[in-house]
Amino acid sequence: MTTTIPSLTQDLRDFAAARDWAPFHSPKNLAAALSVEAAELLEHFQWLTEEQSRHLPQAKKDEVGAEAADVLLYLLQLCDKLDIDLLESARRKMLVNAEKYPVATARGSSQKHTAD
Amino acid sequence: MTTTIPSLTQDLRDFAAARDWAPFHSPKNLAAALSVEAAELLEHFQWLTEEQSRHLPQAKKDEVGAEAADVLLYLLQLCDKLDIDLLESARRKMLVNAEKYPVATARGSSQKHTAD
Amino acid sequence: MTTTIPSLTQDLRDFAAARDWAPFHSPKNLAAALSVEAAELLEHFQWLTEEQSRHLPQAKKDEVGAEAADVLLYLLQLCDKLDIDLLESARRKMLVNAEKYPVATARGSSQKHTAD
Amino acid sequence: MTTTIPSLTQDLRDFAAARDWAPFHSPKNLAAALSVEAAELLEHFQWLTEEQSRHLPQAKKDEVGAEAADVLLYLLQLCDKLDIDLLESARRKMLVNAEKYPVATARGSSQKHTAD
Repeated sequence: MTTTIPSLTQDLRDFAAARDWAPFHSPKNLAAALSVEAAELLEHFQWLTEEQSRHLPQAKKDEVGAEAADVLLYLLQLCDKLDIDLLESARRKMLVNAEKYPVATARGSSQKHTAD
Repeated sequence: MTTTIPSLTQDLRDFAAARDWAPFHSPKNLAAALSVEAAELLEHFQWLTEEQSRHLPQAKKDEVGAEAADVLLYLLQLCDKLDIDLLESARRKMLVNAEKYPVATARGSSQKHTAD
Repeated sequence: MTTTIPSLTQDLRDFAAARDWAPFHSPKNLAAALSVEAAELLEHFQWLTEEQSRHLPQAKKDEVGAEAADVLLYLLQLCDKLDIDLLESARRKMLVNAEKYPVATARGSSQKHTAD
Repeated sequence: MTTTIPSLTQDLRDFAAARDWAPFHSPKNLAAALSVEAAELLEHFQWLTEEQSRHLPQAKKDEVGAEAADVLLYLLQLCDKLDIDLLESARRKMLVNAEKYPVATARGSSQKHTAD
């Protein structure tokens, strides 16, 4: 069976319900946990050069993949609690970004990112 | 057309390519940007009580949804650069978590989370 | 001998020099490391209630103290590399905050913090 | 008058008391705010190369200095609430680090940092 955002969301709901974790999973706490996981992911890169980060050995990629999974799992739980449709929000955000960073002016410039 | 993780990933690839952003988008930089966006999401919750965070007004939910989208968009770009299959990693991580936090012992305890 | 910000800064300089760490200690990398340490500190609190966070057992306080130290040590190294006078910046920031959050309007409101 | 860690701590105490901010300033919330400020600092560096980060223009240094101040101010408030002596913790942490990263083995290696 294919893993999708809706199937993961349902699995996470069942997982937390079976463990009575609802009291811990306030949106505030999930946002903090998400931020902590994102930092754990960053930790893998903090002393690497950009070039090294483009050529990770497979073992390191697997570790990064596990941290990326943690980020996604908390993000999905947060969105689920807040009735946010994450994929639809992402689609809308891409339209906003297309207006904010027109190809003509954003080309090759990191200035685009300043108001993210 | 339905928005999916693969379709978003392709859209992000096209978006960055049209703007020549590859030089900025090293995995190291994307990991930093991801972490910054996760913190911007957390900022919405930092002075709220947990209870308040469970009852956000719709306008605030929309803002949080836009930040959640930013987190996802950087996460997808990072995984794309590193050839990480995010959904598959998430599926595997849930199996790991099921072993790590058995229902019998993890029930109602936040101790489960200590070794995340 | 009393530990002060200037004495710690000098000790950190000597420590890094003895280990040839200058190549790793770009301001960019130090800023990432600082952010990672701040998240490790936050991790101690993520599943606690606010009330629990006000009454930490001593062992937990010691752990938090060690993380707080890590945050300070990276902050000092970052400021040293950029010739930023941290204490003077902090003094100036407090003057800015005093204007931004006048007692009359900021009293008892978390709104003060929105534009931090 | 010289600005010191103890004088800043006292000023922060007075500042928060005058505004009745004690209810917001639980250690949990202060830890979240600290982490958010550290990410705002990191944001200034996320698209820069390491080399660029070593040669910031003065205007950018001033902005970074203001963010560094925010980090320090929350760190001091957090430590104050928890009765943590930050400078003493930092001094102790440096002794721990001296044992953990002996000059002979840590020289020129970023491996030192892995267990931070």
